[in-house]
Amino acid sequence: MTEENIKYNAPTEVREIEVLNSYELEKEAGKIVPKGGYDYISGGAGDEFTLKQNTKVWNKKGILPRVLADVEHPDPSTSILGHDIRAPFIMAPIAAHGLAHESKEAGTARGIAEFGTIMSISAYSGAKFEEIEKGLDGGPRWFQIYMSKDDELNKNILDEAKADGATAIILTADSTVSGNREKDQFNKFVYPFGMPIVSRYLTGSGKNMSLNNIYSQSKQKITPADVRFLKEYSDLPVFVKGIQSPEDAVLAIGAGADGIWVSNHGGRQLDGAPGSFAMLESISKAVAGRVPIVFDSGVRRGEHIFKALASGADIVALGRPILYGLALGGWKGVYSVLNYFDEDFKRVMQLAGTQTIEDVKNTNLVDLN
Amino acid sequence: MTEENIKYNAPTEVREIEVLNSYELEKEAGKIVPKGGYDYISGGAGDEFTLKQNTKVWNKKGILPRVLADVEHPDPSTSILGHDIRAPFIMAPIAAHGLAHESKEAGTARGIAEFGTIMSISAYSGAKFEEIEKGLDGGPRWFQIYMSKDDELNKNILDEAKADGATAIILTADSTVSGNREKDQFNKFVYPFGMPIVSRYLTGSGKNMSLNNIYSQSKQKITPADVRFLKEYSDLPVFVKGIQSPEDAVLAIGAGADGIWVSNHGGRQLDGAPGSFAMLESISKAVAGRVPIVFDSGVRRGEHIFKALASGADIVALGRPILYGLALGGWKGVYSVLNYFDEDFKRVMQLAGTQTIEDVKNTNLVDLN
Amino acid sequence: MTEENIKYNAPTEVREIEVLNSYELEKEAGKIVPKGGYDYISGGAGDEFTLKQNTKVWNKKGILPRVLADVEHPDPSTSILGHDIRAPFIMAPIAAHGLAHESKEAGTARGIAEFGTIMSISAYSGAKFEEIEKGLDGGPRWFQIYMSKDDELNKNILDEAKADGATAIILTADSTVSGNREKDQFNKFVYPFGMPIVSRYLTGSGKNMSLNNIYSQSKQKITPADVRFLKEYSDLPVFVKGIQSPEDAVLAIGAGADGIWVSNHGGRQLDGAPGSFAMLESISKAVAGRVPIVFDSGVRRGEHIFKALASGADIVALGRPILYGLALGGWKGVYSVLNYFDEDFKRVMQLAGTQTIEDVKNTNLVDLN
Amino acid sequence: MTEENIKYNAPTEVREIEVLNSYELEKEAGKIVPKGGYDYISGGAGDEFTLKQNTKVWNKKGILPRVLADVEHPDPSTSILGHDIRAPFIMAPIAAHGLAHESKEAGTARGIAEFGTIMSISAYSGAKFEEIEKGLDGGPRWFQIYMSKDDELNKNILDEAKADGATAIILTADSTVSGNREKDQFNKFVYPFGMPIVSRYLTGSGKNMSLNNIYSQSKQKITPADVRFLKEYSDLPVFVKGIQSPEDAVLAIGAGADGIWVSNHGGRQLDGAPGSFAMLESISKAVAGRVPIVFDSGVRRGEHIFKALASGADIVALGRPILYGLALGGWKGVYSVLNYFDEDFKRVMQLAGTQTIEDVKNTNLVDLN
Repeated sequence: MTEENIKYNAPTEVREIEVLNSYELEKEAGKIVPKGGYDYISGGAGDEFTLKQNTKVWNKKGILPRVLADVEHPDPSTSILGHDIRAPFIMAPIAAHGLAHESKEAGTARGIAEFGTIMSISAYSGAKFEEIEKGLDGGPRWFQIYMSKDDELNKNILDEAKADGATAIILTADSTVSGNREKDQFNKFVYPFGMPIVSRYLTGSGKNMSLNNIYSQSKQKITPADVRFLKEYSDLPVFVKGIQSPEDAVLAIGAGADGIWVSNHGGRQLDGAPGSFAMLESISKAVAGRVPIVFDSGVRRGEHIFKALASGADIVALGRPILYGLALGGWKGVYSVLNYFDEDFKRVMQLAGTQTIEDVKNTNLVDLN
Repeated sequence: MTEENIKYNAPTEVREIEVLNSYELEKEAGKIVPKGGYDYISGGAGDEFTLKQNTKVWNKKGILPRVLADVEHPDPSTSILGHDIRAPFIMAPIAAHGLAHESKEAGTARGIAEFGTIMSISAYSGAKFEEIEKGLDGGPRWFQIYMSKDDELNKNILDEAKADGATAIILTADSTVSGNREKDQFNKFVYPFGMPIVSRYLTGSGKNMSLNNIYSQSKQKITPADVRFLKEYSDLPVFVKGIQSPEDAVLAIGAGADGIWVSNHGGRQLDGAPGSFAMLESISKAVAGRVPIVFDSGVRRGEHIFKALASGADIVALGRPILYGLALGGWKGVYSVLNYFDEDFKRVMQLAGTQTIEDVKNTNLVDLN
Repeated sequence: MTEENIKYNAPTEVREIEVLNSYELEKEAGKIVPKGGYDYISGGAGDEFTLKQNTKVWNKKGILPRVLADVEHPDPSTSILGHDIRAPFIMAPIAAHGLAHESKEAGTARGIAEFGTIMSISAYSGAKFEEIEKGLDGGPRWFQIYMSKDDELNKNILDEAKADGATAIILTADSTVSGNREKDQFNKFVYPFGMPIVSRYLTGSGKNMSLNNIYSQSKQKITPADVRFLKEYSDLPVFVKGIQSPEDAVLAIGAGADGIWVSNHGGRQLDGAPGSFAMLESISKAVAGRVPIVFDSGVRRGEHIFKALASGADIVALGRPILYGLALGGWKGVYSVLNYFDEDFKRVMQLAGTQTIEDVKNTNLVDLN
Repeated sequence: MTEENIKYNAPTEVREIEVLNSYELEKEAGKIVPKGGYDYISGGAGDEFTLKQNTKVWNKKGILPRVLADVEHPDPSTSILGHDIRAPFIMAPIAAHGLAHESKEAGTARGIAEFGTIMSISAYSGAKFEEIEKGLDGGPRWFQIYMSKDDELNKNILDEAKADGATAIILTADSTVSGNREKDQFNKFVYPFGMPIVSRYLTGSGKNMSLNNIYSQSKQKITPADVRFLKEYSDLPVFVKGIQSPEDAVLAIGAGADGIWVSNHGGRQLDGAPGSFAMLESISKAVAGRVPIVFDSGVRRGEHIFKALASGADIVALGRPILYGLALGGWKGVYSVLNYFDEDFKRVMQLAGTQTIEDVKNTNLVDLN
């Protein structure tokens, strides 16, 4: 147990924030989130090659401005798995929001619910389901699971998530061990609070444990049978998250996946992998419309949302920028960030001559280099 | 209304200037133009990816030096829509020249007329037609329109422009909402003076209004029917400005456009778009000589003019460099900048072995990478 | 003889070290190894273009994260030429370990042996075979030869190496003269101690001699006949080291080589050459499984080991990072570095969905750019 | 006439110099050559894009290290137009050596002659033929001509060059006007001394005149007829210098050229052109061995000489590095630089497995990117 964890002081302010762009948000958050937590949130694996590629690869494809397109007040609303959402983005599952703000996941949940989209609750949440519900207040939620090696405990977790109202299960499959998070190693980072959802299968609460330690206590041998198990036991649709190849998309669908979640875990797992967006188009072709596709890893602007949808995603999930909003303004900060993305995306829709999400998805991007 | 607008002090000096290159001009202008105005003029949208691409893409194509070519005193004169001009470049339509110099559009117009090329008058001009005429003094002019949602007001504006002597209408079609100008947002920039031409359809004069606000009061749903309307009502040739795809060039010509204006609005509208020059060749192929092509966005050197013409443009339009000349020396500064481009372009013509504009247009560039 | 050589003070500490990554190791070593020695070890030839390419080229190929792969506790063990080794990496032959640590090659050898892989002993070792044996303690070893112009002396050296227990001969063929090591020239670097194995053919012990001088006294005209000679006289398998083209791989195999060692000498010889990894795949195709392939030059991370094996290498050889470990912690530092690579590589195996080295070798990388 | 010209103090020292590499030479020269002269020598046109490309393009092609090649003491000697030279490089024609050293062209000539290669004498030399002969002392020389608009004066110049012993004429055809040398404009650079060879056709001696002014007084309309005129009148072989396209190579040969000189004038003329080496291979294919090819622009290392020869050049011409040697050490400095290139090139020959210039020319380079 390090000194720093004893006195981890997460930000506490609740206020609307002005969002110039996501990169400024990151800088601002870096000024108020304690270093251990900030490095954990913002950092990636290894050389951070993949982390950097996640934002650089957007520049490989250009959006052409379109004219004489008869567009006004474009409509960004869409639906996924039966949920109507205001805009084609949802909250990505992220561990330990309490590192960003004392309101923890409840703060994020409230911002998400007020805006009108879907909350993903991480199995590594620092808050309990009932605490998060205080923010979500009946809003739609999906539950992301890191599996225990013991399926009885997994059933136990699924029961709880389902009782809480989760309408889908997200199986994170790209993290059977922790990525090489050098910043965390350098900081000797351990979580300053516990993880009540998975503590049932940890040798402790999660508090003062490293991510390495926690991942190693979770299940490594994840297989197609796990997808089937989750689906059958929960009777909920299951996303397989962490898909970065057409082969794995096909494998997951073959195992019964109801959705493909394209992600490289925000560059936090296998460094040396391509930027996530670089793989989207080929995965989308392999999926061929059989199940919906969620995209994450590197979404920082409205242009990125547009490019992801034009390349085969149905919606995107936002991660770090939301957590920076949480850090800077609690639930109101989250709300501000979501509004920023909404405004930014609608502007792109207008300038690209697209009235609806269907129009966006039918847009051809142009290759840059 | 911010403090800064109250005391906006535009430069006032009138003098010939030495032009080393456009980049130095920009730096020099940055020293004397108030920050809000300078950032407005020089800035682009979002990451400024497209703004930077506009100048970087020139390096994708090389001009081969040619020898034994029997060239001396190359002739840069050309003509467009019946106007004979000294050199294949004209003034691009730009809003609010008063940000750069107290002489406003009249200063620019005088420099343009003295040099001997065409002035584009922006609908967002800060000067009235009769004020600009003082500088233009009978010289050729085209009128660029941002349309009102009310066609009766559009007719009114067209009447006035035609009475002023405009010989063509430029329909800017890439700006149905404002681009994401982060610098303006950061500066909370509003115009320090009104816009007399479009004030008839604004809720105010334009003074102390943001670009966002003004664009949103202009027409969003621009369609091929608007091209036909402008053409029929004005009985003037119509350019569609903001073309960045072969598809839109074909669409515009189908709607009756008399000229295609290839532009991404100087990187100020849709960020994430390619550099404008990257799209020119494919657009030119689609146009196939049916109507003339004007090119803008990123022209900073004689080499760039040469490359644009060799890739299908008939003439180019110059924007920011002219405004920097205006800032630094009023109409004489504009004249100096035009002479710089003229000299620079003729040197390139000589070294590339081309005697006439026709020779330039028949030159093959070489792919670089 | 320069002042610096008189008082060359190699590091002496023996301790386990924490390894964040190889680049930090290099920086740390740079703080304690005397400048002449550090520049000699870390530097490359000419512009250091090839040196830098050696690490940059890894980013031309991406490893795709794989999911649902049923992997746990991946097994990195493999075997080469009859030796079972814990992990697919061995020690590369490097001259003059005494520049890094007072324990010289004996320190490296002990770390290698304790970990459980193969030591390559350089002909330009600063320690004698019997001194190195004190560290190796019976562990497996290969002997790397720089040939004398006099084959009788070569026989003499081979006799000694064989008596010492070498189970393979590595013929370094890419260094018939010294590369253009500008840092060494700038430092006027000479070795501060002798080279007992090759001193029999030098005009002196090697002490206070430059690399240029030593190379020029070694054999330049190396031919296929030398491969045959080494093989026949020693009755040991012979690697040809320094292969960077399919043509030379075929040539070496035709001359009887039992193994191909792909290397550009860590960017220390011919600058302007490609990064070593850039040539591996085509060489591997030419070798077509006839003999094993060892890869070196630029291996700094577990991801690199993975990429090399997936591109045709059977094992990799580690050079500079081991010497930095030696500098920082003697044999224990070497051991720490080997453990770092072992852990890092196993993590990559897990995240890439590979249980065995055979799985790694069957993995398809993805092209990046 | 500026103050600076009045007191231009060229370096005067005569000494052997240590050459680490050409880039260091440039830096060292920058410390002692007056700024106006240094900027003139080192600078390029416009953005210096082409200047930088001249050295960057080398990295598009790699030299593969070769092994088992049976090479020792490689032989760099070759011959061109009947001259046997020690190494495949000669002096490029450069104006006004007096900017670098008080010994002017005579200093360069002595270094060249002592080494044993060919001197190119520029028409814009600051020394007279008889002064240069003092250094050259009977050594081989070619004469580079900038033509007068008056052919009688051209005859006069040719007579003088021939009387001086020139064995070839180099027609510089890429400079019918001056490139856009921004540094010279900024410095308001004028030559601090006259040009005795061409002063017969200038309105003055050349002293206190700008390059722009001098070029404009030379001939612009250079045509194939000029090649024939030079050849017939002088009865000497004629190189056309400044070829950057296969088309112009064919044109020059058709006009009777006895050699093709591939050059973009060191990036000093048409900016936006490719790096000179990028065009060599296609030009060489068009020449198809009919006449010899000299290559210049960007040669800074032995590797570059190797790559140029392997891509079709017969010899290369060295420019700026020689002038830096002259600045730093007079004729002895020139000699040192030539020896550096000789040693560096022989090392590359050895490591690339090539015994003769013929072997170098038969080497296949590998594409990098």
